[in-house]
Amino acid sequence: MHTADLSELDRAIAVTGRGDGEYAAALGAGWLIGDALNGGYLLAVIGNAVRASLADAGQPDPFVVSAHFLSAGRPGPATVRARLVRSGGRHSTVAASLVQQEETRAEVERITVLATYGDLARNVPDVRTTALPPELPPVEECLPSSASDEELRRMVPFMDRLDLRLEPESAGWAVGEPSRRGVLQGWLRLADGRPLDPLALLLVVDAMPPTTFDLGLQGWAPTLELTAHVRADPAPGWARVRCESRNFADGYFEEDCEVWDSTGRLVAQSRQLALAPRPA
Amino acid sequence: MHTADLSELDRAIAVTGRGDGEYAAALGAGWLIGDALNGGYLLAVIGNAVRASLADAGQPDPFVVSAHFLSAGRPGPATVRARLVRSGGRHSTVAASLVQQEETRAEVERITVLATYGDLARNVPDVRTTALPPELPPVEECLPSSASDEELRRMVPFMDRLDLRLEPESAGWAVGEPSRRGVLQGWLRLADGRPLDPLALLLVVDAMPPTTFDLGLQGWAPTLELTAHVRADPAPGWARVRCESRNFADGYFEEDCEVWDSTGRLVAQSRQLALAPRPA
Repeated sequence: MHTADLSELDRAIAVTGRGDGEYAAALGAGWLIGDALNGGYLLAVIGNAVRASLADAGQPDPFVVSAHFLSAGRPGPATVRARLVRSGGRHSTVAASLVQQEETRAEVERITVLATYGDLARNVPDVRTTALPPELPPVEECLPSSASDEELRRMVPFMDRLDLRLEPESAGWAVGEPSRRGVLQGWLRLADGRPLDPLALLLVVDAMPPTTFDLGLQGWAPTLELTAHVRADPAPGWARVRCESRNFADGYFEEDCEVWDSTGRLVAQSRQLALAPRPA
Repeated sequence: MHTADLSELDRAIAVTGRGDGEYAAALGAGWLIGDALNGGYLLAVIGNAVRASLADAGQPDPFVVSAHFLSAGRPGPATVRARLVRSGGRHSTVAASLVQQEETRAEVERITVLATYGDLARNVPDVRTTALPPELPPVEECLPSSASDEELRRMVPFMDRLDLRLEPESAGWAVGEPSRRGVLQGWLRLADGRPLDPLALLLVVDAMPPTTFDLGLQGWAPTLELTAHVRADPAPGWARVRCESRNFADGYFEEDCEVWDSTGRLVAQSRQLALAPRPA
């Protein structure tokens, strides 16, 4: 397949092996939020390198990825270093870091992760208990992110990578009327129509605006750590995403996200610990 | 302070620096569940080594620890290797692994973690939103784990390290009547009266029986990964612990635990991804 045939996500997370567990990537400016690349995008790049490092194991899918965020990623060249920690029967665990060179040529780590991979296709279907997906108005009654004003979209090119439709109550912050539930939820798919898959879910779990917007707090809320569980390969179509923060205290908050596929199956869960936005 | 003055937890998680980020520990048989050491105990040992490795940074407290479980820990000598990944203003991130020698003298990794530490005492008190602690009957109406039969307690010496009082509904599984809510909750303190602190919370978030017991599934449910957030230094006294599984599918389940201190403050949150127990 030629690169030109790939979706924009596939092109943006492509990695080239250099041997010894080292992979080269080119981080795209289209995934910027202000001057920092979206964390979920960086996670998908690392996830793709980890997948490549496990090509011989037949374990292509992230089952659980824990990421500690160290510094903001920038567009341009990056290197992912992956080291196999344990290779088991059903799962393999890899430690990986994404690094970039700063202008001074010094190498700086952006994210460091521990990732346990397996093969989702080998799981035996058997849903015993399940939470319920969020109830949302129909897609056409939700608010497309593409309706945001042009200045915002210029500052946040990342918004144009997704087709996100927030339910009206979750979009009140945009007009100064946050619901103050600490909840943001809506429909989501990739803007270019590429179906979601396990790697794309690593992006999706960190793709929503911060829940602090819904608490009436504008501003950047840096992630300290994010762990994602991928529970199933998503069916094609619109996914439902719900993010909630229940405990905002002493300058920190947790953000729990769930991703449900078009069949109503929970396909991913994540939790992050983030720093409260500082007053501008 | 003499070792004899320390609580049993402090003695059991003690580490001795060997230089170059290497720490020696002696894992205690009192923390066994069957023939494997409790994962939370191992996490507290690693947490103590990470604290020692950051002694000069003035950042003694785990803020978020992500642990991938590789093999079962055994009583006896162990080594923790800690490597500073990033040292920042408010937080430092350390990668650490706990290893043991097998009978063949080969070194085997038990747990590998990424840990971001800071100083909880420097956080400015400011609780903006908070979930509510679980409603529990008074301690004296709950069921002490010390009332379990002697054979069980011989197989699970770990039970005697804790004073755990499950609410009656959460203890139904012990008499063949699981509530099937996927919830276990109760009061908890350390058996020897040592007050909880941030390191002890790493133990507490993995101290409850698996929530699968409450779903009517007996048996060992191995943890693949556990991430803990420590949100505050707990006040002395009984803590309330609530663990819940909402999604049990295809042989995997998540388990979310919350720990609330005696003042009703959320002090820790954890989520793990575990393997469903295999039928005996």
